[in-house]
Amino acid sequence: MHAYRSHTCADLTIKNVGETIRLSGWVHRVRDHGGLLFIDLRDHYGMTQVLCDPDSPVFKEVEKLRSEWCIRIDGTVKARDAELVNPKIPTGEIEVFIRDLEVLGAAEELPLMVFGEQEYPEETRLKYRYLDLRREKLQKNMKMRSDVVASMRRRMWDQGFREFQTPIITASSPEGARDFLVPSRLHPGKFYALPQAPQQFKQLIMVSGYDKYFQIAPCFRDEDPRADRSPTDFYQLDLEMSFVDQQDIFDTIQPVLTGVFEEFGGGRKVDQTWEQISYRDAALWYGSDKPDLRNPIRMQVVSEYFAGSGFAIFAKLLEQEGTEIRAIPAPKGGSRKFCDRMNAFAQKEGLPGMGYIFWRDQGEGMEAAGPLAKNIGPERTEAIRQQLGLGVGDAAFFLGGKPKAFEGVAGKARMVIGDELGLTDKERFAFAWIVDFPIYEKDAETGKIDFEHNPFSMPQGGMEALEGDPLQVLGYQYDLACNGYELLSGAIRNHRPEIMFKAFEIAGYGKEEVEKRFGGMVNAFQYGAPPHGGCAAGIDRIVMLLADEANIREVIMFPMNQRAEDLMMAAPSEPMNEQLRELSLRVIAPE
Amino acid sequence: MHAYRSHTCADLTIKNVGETIRLSGWVHRVRDHGGLLFIDLRDHYGMTQVLCDPDSPVFKEVEKLRSEWCIRIDGTVKARDAELVNPKIPTGEIEVFIRDLEVLGAAEELPLMVFGEQEYPEETRLKYRYLDLRREKLQKNMKMRSDVVASMRRRMWDQGFREFQTPIITASSPEGARDFLVPSRLHPGKFYALPQAPQQFKQLIMVSGYDKYFQIAPCFRDEDPRADRSPTDFYQLDLEMSFVDQQDIFDTIQPVLTGVFEEFGGGRKVDQTWEQISYRDAALWYGSDKPDLRNPIRMQVVSEYFAGSGFAIFAKLLEQEGTEIRAIPAPKGGSRKFCDRMNAFAQKEGLPGMGYIFWRDQGEGMEAAGPLAKNIGPERTEAIRQQLGLGVGDAAFFLGGKPKAFEGVAGKARMVIGDELGLTDKERFAFAWIVDFPIYEKDAETGKIDFEHNPFSMPQGGMEALEGDPLQVLGYQYDLACNGYELLSGAIRNHRPEIMFKAFEIAGYGKEEVEKRFGGMVNAFQYGAPPHGGCAAGIDRIVMLLADEANIREVIMFPMNQRAEDLMMAAPSEPMNEQLRELSLRVIAPE
Repeated sequence: MHAYRSHTCADLTIKNVGETIRLSGWVHRVRDHGGLLFIDLRDHYGMTQVLCDPDSPVFKEVEKLRSEWCIRIDGTVKARDAELVNPKIPTGEIEVFIRDLEVLGAAEELPLMVFGEQEYPEETRLKYRYLDLRREKLQKNMKMRSDVVASMRRRMWDQGFREFQTPIITASSPEGARDFLVPSRLHPGKFYALPQAPQQFKQLIMVSGYDKYFQIAPCFRDEDPRADRSPTDFYQLDLEMSFVDQQDIFDTIQPVLTGVFEEFGGGRKVDQTWEQISYRDAALWYGSDKPDLRNPIRMQVVSEYFAGSGFAIFAKLLEQEGTEIRAIPAPKGGSRKFCDRMNAFAQKEGLPGMGYIFWRDQGEGMEAAGPLAKNIGPERTEAIRQQLGLGVGDAAFFLGGKPKAFEGVAGKARMVIGDELGLTDKERFAFAWIVDFPIYEKDAETGKIDFEHNPFSMPQGGMEALEGDPLQVLGYQYDLACNGYELLSGAIRNHRPEIMFKAFEIAGYGKEEVEKRFGGMVNAFQYGAPPHGGCAAGIDRIVMLLADEANIREVIMFPMNQRAEDLMMAAPSEPMNEQLRELSLRVIAPE
Repeated sequence: MHAYRSHTCADLTIKNVGETIRLSGWVHRVRDHGGLLFIDLRDHYGMTQVLCDPDSPVFKEVEKLRSEWCIRIDGTVKARDAELVNPKIPTGEIEVFIRDLEVLGAAEELPLMVFGEQEYPEETRLKYRYLDLRREKLQKNMKMRSDVVASMRRRMWDQGFREFQTPIITASSPEGARDFLVPSRLHPGKFYALPQAPQQFKQLIMVSGYDKYFQIAPCFRDEDPRADRSPTDFYQLDLEMSFVDQQDIFDTIQPVLTGVFEEFGGGRKVDQTWEQISYRDAALWYGSDKPDLRNPIRMQVVSEYFAGSGFAIFAKLLEQEGTEIRAIPAPKGGSRKFCDRMNAFAQKEGLPGMGYIFWRDQGEGMEAAGPLAKNIGPERTEAIRQQLGLGVGDAAFFLGGKPKAFEGVAGKARMVIGDELGLTDKERFAFAWIVDFPIYEKDAETGKIDFEHNPFSMPQGGMEALEGDPLQVLGYQYDLACNGYELLSGAIRNHRPEIMFKAFEIAGYGKEEVEKRFGGMVNAFQYGAPPHGGCAAGIDRIVMLLADEANIREVIMFPMNQRAEDLMMAAPSEPMNEQLRELSLRVIAPE
């Protein structure tokens, strides 16, 4: 017989009754039923009930077992009495009478129980991650993560992509965050950087003629931690293709992601048609460039009804250039209590408040209630109602000013309204492409023009467009929004050196600086670069959505804590003096 | 029609004759046949002959094309004349008459030609890697690498393993090389390390109850470069299993590797039975712990024939303790010329020389020639011949002393002999497990006992063995040798804290130091650790063997040069002052 097991803890059924078997696993739970010891023995695959009566030659040793001891038992399989059968687990028809026992690994008193649902502080969970990982939820999440990544890989291969590994200890590949640096021992004073993304390398792979690249790529950004972002390394499904336009990329990645979401989404509905929404419309309709489209509310411009109206605040506002009044329709939100609560929400978010109108049945017909309705009068109120398609029992909220100033809060209000009114379909994955991002933005204070996003995108209209007003130039650049998260980001790249230099020039970067920062890529473009484009999807975030978790640490095997520390492994830590000497480095005492 | 292509450059056949098609790709070669321009248009998939006659509306533009310009053409497919059909390529029956042309990416004058077989200095190849990568050999190698990795993954999944990603920015996980350090911005003066291997994490995954783990794992070692080793990051097929003994690991990984070698070995023979050779026997028989078993020569101990013999050098040598005489049989090596050449080889390697005997047909029977035979006389010579199983036309070489002192050269000599005599079967992948590594070694100078290999292996015999002579203790530790390379290394781990502390104590490491260096893992072992073991196989090296390359840089997409520099991306480079300030670091000027 094998030294440790003849079966796993999920294998034994009624067919094995009478057999002498061997199992290994962890003591999940021990119960003493009047001298009879019941143990739930757990391994990665399942659970088997094993028991020991005082006649067993190892009864005394079994009595000493405690939770989470790792043991090996030999025993005889018996059928359970009919009334004791547990139909919920595959081994529920049998139990095993222990005849021999070996303790493979004893356990000290546990800082964290594996059995049961008790909550522990995150620091405890991370310090004893190996115990936390034994718990049912994390076992499930980690298996799912592994399966999701494998499914992505399979789907990419099925589409004719090959996976290539790009360097990790390399040069800076700036993506807007801080680099992690790695001091070089052989070249004192010089540093490598860990790639924020394999951006330049994947473009070089296209220039090298490989046509279709993907990688489950480790990425490194020295960013301040937050719930949906790892503070050190994280993984992206990274892809790039040559001889494609934007629609080709969409047609490639959409089936991969719908496939993954259908496979692992637990039956939640997965959008099959992904709308393309311009960056501008997304801001207007949803107050976000990663709108949650499970919520059907779409905001609308209603400036015309307030211009010159009796609602002086909005009327005056509209006299300033660049201002607008927008409405958030709130179907079924037509009660004063609800409207006041939303108004208070806006105030908490730093706005003076949100005006509102709600429509109620007044007996002889519909009545528009709320101070706003009175101020602008019945005609304008009715016109608004008709434009928004609302009726009795509904409400609308109004925000005004320069869009940039209130869009964020409007977007949040839209979400709160959708949630509170039960309009948001929680059993759905709602996808939309956000397209037509502006290439440049103007810094409100300095007036300086800089890249809005990433400098590698091809401007729509090419060189010609760059010769006009830069703030009007849109890029072949896109994000994918899903349930309020940005899942993916990508672009058709600017592969023409002359257009690239021009694009950088507009943002104030001279040729020399471009060559210094992106020399590898820019040089390569001078030797027959193909048109190409691609995208990168955040794997941790996708798994988080699929596992229905709100914190990325629930889907990473060994995550850092919020201060970018690994409490279990004691990282980061102080180096040995010799290591610093070898690297020609000295630590400066903090001022 | 698609903006760039209706077909790839490998698609068009006689069935497409008459169609108007669109292709994109690179100008591989241009030939001018009396005003008719022939272009081999190349993409990732293949090559198509396109041509342009002076009647074409774009003839003037086509005339300007040069090698490696990236272009899009529209054209009409025509059948080639029977005598011009090229049966070697799928598109060899047709050619395309160009009607329209778009230059997608022009190319400067090329520092490295893609067409043809010209050799370039490695620095040129690495600096213009994107051109080098377009060449046929590297296209083939990179595709194979990608396919090998995918095949490994599939085979691991088929065996019930799941892939889990372990942290990259983490704590030191010493494997005998130097760590790469990463300074922490949030914790001034502290550093993360990049893992030399996911050793501790994979063991923690076992303690976490996951049973079967694998990963195509990036590993990082700050080592001085050499031909079969990357100086920065490299990949391993890393695996670990719980509740297993050594044979289970062998039975798991062998089918994965034989499968991969059969799939990609280009028809070379793949050993199906892998011998298990003890570390001690490998040294004796092959003078190496990674023997090349394509070479059938096995060395033997022949001390008894020299003790007290007339060959004074060896006879005296044998009077010292710990000395031995070993023979390298050389079937078909029986000529003085060959024997002298081998003797000279040994001298070049720093030994006084290698004595030899060779056997020749003397007319009336066999004669043993060479000075050694004369010195020890016919009886001893004949006994040697019989033990080695040699005859007319064969030779044997002899080395003596303390085995450690000459084993290395003996091993090399064995290889040279095998190669020169054509005994080594080049069309074979010969595998053997090297087992029973000693856990400890004694430093010849200091007499200090230290770990021979890695400190995590379970000693054979457990605690009891550790209480005896440490130098006699063998570990459940193994390497896999293939054609003279170490392809894989692994062990059954020491999962019992008390045995682990004892093992470290013998090597002079106190409990406190062990807890400091391996705290994460040692702590975990106190909470019910399962017996477990695994191994890691070097992917770059496996692909190198499969692709029949002698240099690892031929199978890595973007390798570093021998000085650990990326000439294309200019890494490492000097950081900005602000970056150093953020990291609280100062570079010390070299002394």
